[in-house]
Amino acid sequence: MHRYRSHTCAALRKTDVGSTVRISGWVHRVRDHGGVLFIDLRDHYGITQVVADPDSPAFKTAETVRGEWVIRIDGLVKARTEETVNKNMATGEIELYAQEIEVLSAAKELPLPVFGEPDYPEDVRLKYRFLDLRRETLHKNIVKRTQVISAMRREMGGAGFTEYTTPILTASSPEGARDFLVPSRIHPGTFYALPQAPQQYKQLLMVAGFDRYFQIAPCFRDEDPRADRLPGEFYQLDLEMSFVTQEDVWNTMGPLMTKVFEEFADGKPVTKEWPRIPYDEAIRKYGSDKPDLRNPIVMEAVTEHFAGSGFKVFAGMIASNPKVQVWAIPAKTGGSRAFCDRMNAWAQSQGQPGLGYIFWRSESEKLEGAGPLAKNIGEERTDAIRTQLGLGDGDACFFVAGEPEKFYKFAGEARTKAGEELNLVDRDRFELCWIVDFPFFEWNEEEKKVDFAHNPFSMPQGGLEALQSQDPLTIKAFQYDAVCNGFEIASGSIRNQSPETMVAAFEKVGLSQQDVEDRFGGLYRAFQYGAPPHGGAAFGIDRIVMLLVGAKNLREISLFPMNQQAQDLLMGAPSPATPTQLRELAIRPIPPAKKD
Amino acid sequence: MHRYRSHTCAALRKTDVGSTVRISGWVHRVRDHGGVLFIDLRDHYGITQVVADPDSPAFKTAETVRGEWVIRIDGLVKARTEETVNKNMATGEIELYAQEIEVLSAAKELPLPVFGEPDYPEDVRLKYRFLDLRRETLHKNIVKRTQVISAMRREMGGAGFTEYTTPILTASSPEGARDFLVPSRIHPGTFYALPQAPQQYKQLLMVAGFDRYFQIAPCFRDEDPRADRLPGEFYQLDLEMSFVTQEDVWNTMGPLMTKVFEEFADGKPVTKEWPRIPYDEAIRKYGSDKPDLRNPIVMEAVTEHFAGSGFKVFAGMIASNPKVQVWAIPAKTGGSRAFCDRMNAWAQSQGQPGLGYIFWRSESEKLEGAGPLAKNIGEERTDAIRTQLGLGDGDACFFVAGEPEKFYKFAGEARTKAGEELNLVDRDRFELCWIVDFPFFEWNEEEKKVDFAHNPFSMPQGGLEALQSQDPLTIKAFQYDAVCNGFEIASGSIRNQSPETMVAAFEKVGLSQQDVEDRFGGLYRAFQYGAPPHGGAAFGIDRIVMLLVGAKNLREISLFPMNQQAQDLLMGAPSPATPTQLRELAIRPIPPAKKD
Repeated sequence: MHRYRSHTCAALRKTDVGSTVRISGWVHRVRDHGGVLFIDLRDHYGITQVVADPDSPAFKTAETVRGEWVIRIDGLVKARTEETVNKNMATGEIELYAQEIEVLSAAKELPLPVFGEPDYPEDVRLKYRFLDLRRETLHKNIVKRTQVISAMRREMGGAGFTEYTTPILTASSPEGARDFLVPSRIHPGTFYALPQAPQQYKQLLMVAGFDRYFQIAPCFRDEDPRADRLPGEFYQLDLEMSFVTQEDVWNTMGPLMTKVFEEFADGKPVTKEWPRIPYDEAIRKYGSDKPDLRNPIVMEAVTEHFAGSGFKVFAGMIASNPKVQVWAIPAKTGGSRAFCDRMNAWAQSQGQPGLGYIFWRSESEKLEGAGPLAKNIGEERTDAIRTQLGLGDGDACFFVAGEPEKFYKFAGEARTKAGEELNLVDRDRFELCWIVDFPFFEWNEEEKKVDFAHNPFSMPQGGLEALQSQDPLTIKAFQYDAVCNGFEIASGSIRNQSPETMVAAFEKVGLSQQDVEDRFGGLYRAFQYGAPPHGGAAFGIDRIVMLLVGAKNLREISLFPMNQQAQDLLMGAPSPATPTQLRELAIRPIPPAKKD
Repeated sequence: MHRYRSHTCAALRKTDVGSTVRISGWVHRVRDHGGVLFIDLRDHYGITQVVADPDSPAFKTAETVRGEWVIRIDGLVKARTEETVNKNMATGEIELYAQEIEVLSAAKELPLPVFGEPDYPEDVRLKYRFLDLRRETLHKNIVKRTQVISAMRREMGGAGFTEYTTPILTASSPEGARDFLVPSRIHPGTFYALPQAPQQYKQLLMVAGFDRYFQIAPCFRDEDPRADRLPGEFYQLDLEMSFVTQEDVWNTMGPLMTKVFEEFADGKPVTKEWPRIPYDEAIRKYGSDKPDLRNPIVMEAVTEHFAGSGFKVFAGMIASNPKVQVWAIPAKTGGSRAFCDRMNAWAQSQGQPGLGYIFWRSESEKLEGAGPLAKNIGEERTDAIRTQLGLGDGDACFFVAGEPEKFYKFAGEARTKAGEELNLVDRDRFELCWIVDFPFFEWNEEEKKVDFAHNPFSMPQGGLEALQSQDPLTIKAFQYDAVCNGFEIASGSIRNQSPETMVAAFEKVGLSQQDVEDRFGGLYRAFQYGAPPHGGAAFGIDRIVMLLVGAKNLREISLFPMNQQAQDLLMGAPSPATPTQLRELAIRPIPPAKKD
């Protein structure tokens, strides 16, 4: 027989009854039922119930074992009685009568219980991550994460992509977030950087003719910790394709990601045909470029109904500024004064003056718009609004007014709030879409200049001609995001692979050709020597896994995460370097300035 | 029709004749045959021959295109005449008659030719890596590399392993090679380290109960460049298994790697049943723990034949020191004075006093041992040696004498030299084996103390008892290497997961329990809380790919390698940091000391 096991702890079935077997694993828990000991033995695969009664030669050892000890058990497989069969366990029809127990590794008193997964402080969980990871939920999440990544690899391979690994010790990138730096020992005073993303390398791969690239790529940004971002590294499904338009990227990646989602969605519906929503439309309808499409609320402009109306605040704004609009946030089933007042109070808590509303109720068989606004604008306008938005008895509508670019975010938040409060959001589905036609430039009010709105490497729609002839703020980019349930899960674009167009684009934001060469030399040089049209995207793996397992915290889907202070409590990183290391690297830490 | 292509450059066949198609790619070369232009258009998948004669509306554009321009061509598929069919090309039965050509991206004059792959200086190849990578051989090597890795992933998955990703920003490891350090911005004066290998994390995964781990793992060692090691990062197929003995690792990984090798061996034979050669035996037979088993030479001790013989040098050594042995290196077909003298001269060039030999020839129908040694020891002993080694007419034998631990390396080199010079080595095969039973400790002559011979985390054979009762230098470890054609391709062991045994082992090399806790705190702590027996290995992916593609230089199988000075010439790394970056990281480069 094998030294440690003939079966895993998930393997034994009724058909094994009568066999002598060997299993090894962790003591999940021990129960004493009137002198008979029941040991639940756990391994990666499952749990097997082991029994030792005082007649068993293993009884004496069985009495000594404690939770999380690692033991080997030889025993006889017995059928459970009908009353004791556990249908929720794969091995629930049998139990193992222990004949010999060997302690492979005892455990000290546990700083963190495994069985039952009681809540425990974060720092203990991270310091004893090896125990935390034995807990059922986290263990399952981590395994599911590996399966999701594995499915992505499989599907990408099936779609003709090849996985290439790009360097991790690379050059500092002058755009984007803060780099992690790595001092060079051989070239004192200089530094490598860890890649924020393999953006330039993947584009170089296209220039090198590799056609369809992907990578489960580690990315590094030295950003201050945020609730939705762990310090240090994160993973992207990074991809790039040559000789494609943006439709090719969408047509390839949409169905592919739907398939991956469906595989792990536990039967929840997943969008099959991803809507392609232009950025401007997303802002107008949802107040966000990351709309949660599970929320059925679609906002509409109702400016005309307030223009010249008796509601002087809105009417005055409209009259004095042609940019002013009034947006309506229809809220079906929200038609009670209590709810509307709650929304109004919430708006005030968000620093808004308030949230105007109308709600409809039937009064003596007549549908009536209620609330101060309705009174001010009168019955006809109130009914016109109701008709436009398709509302009825028991529904409400909220209104925000002003210049849309200033209020759209708040309007979007109000839409989310109303949808959630009214339970209009169907949580048991995955709604996916592409947000497309992002603006290429944006106005930087502080510096009074034009900036890139997103990715400077994207191709502007209309190309060089648009840059030469159009108001830059009207130029769209071949740039798109993928959004799931209100979270951005991917970003991508068709790249600007024309050196002239690249220089023209950077000129608009005040950078010269020399700047381009200095900052993006590798890529700019490459584009001089035959660069194919290409584009791609990067999907955020951590976010996708969180959505699929329903985790709210990145630490619930990460193997060895750092804490929010960017420390690895298990391994003790970061830590001081030795004098030898510092000397070899020719760097000296600057002592902190003394505080007075 | 698609904006860029209806077919790849490898897709068109005779069955497509008559179709109007669109292809895009790089101009591989242009030939002018009496006014008719032939363009070989290349993409990732293959090459298609395009024809433009002066009647073609695309002729004018065709005249302007140059090597490595990216163009789109619309054209009519025509059958080639029988004489012009090229059977070596997938598309060799057709050609494309160009009707429209669009230049997608022109190329400046090339700093590095792609077509024909002429030799070119390393620095140009690295600076223009995106052109270098278009060259057929390197392009193919890189693709094969991805396929090898993909096959490893597939086979590991099939064998029940799961791929887990371990952190890249981690703690400095006090053992092993030099770490790359990453200054922490949030904790000034402290540093992360990039992992030299995920050794501790993979063991923690076992303690966390994940059972079978693997990873295509990036590893980082800040070592001075060597011919067989690129600066910076390299990749391992890293794996670990719980509840296993070393036989389980061998039985799992041997057949699995054979399958991977066979898939890419282009029909060359690959060892199916890997021999398991104890370290001592490998040294004795091959003079190396990385024996090239394609070389049929097996060394044997022939001490007895020289003891008390007329060859006084050897006889005297044997008489004065019981540790002295004489090893024979049999060299079939090497039986000529010219060859033996050449080997002797080679030995002297290696700093040896010389290399004694006997060779056999038939003189008047009698087999005669020739050379000075044969004369000295006489006919009977000469013949006994010949018989022991199974040599005959036309064969030779070389001899080294002394304490084996001092001469075995040279003996191994002489074995290699003789095998190569005599063409005894069959180059067209992959000979794989396990080298097992490595010594756990070794004697550090400089410091007059016992050191770990290899991996301090390995389990000593005999466990705690052996450590307590045996001469440490006689203890073997459950430690093994995989060797292919003379190269170490993997190293592994069963780990020491017992805290007491770990402390006892470190005590032998002069380290206390406190040292163990300080240096390997994460792992040592984990072993206190129920650690399963576990073991694994790490296979060197770069070396395996080199063997499979027959590359002699790591840069021929790496996508974006650094040069030997650890510089990325393409991206310009390492480079100075900005003052802001240095201030944020609270470090200051130390200016180099001025030379007098």
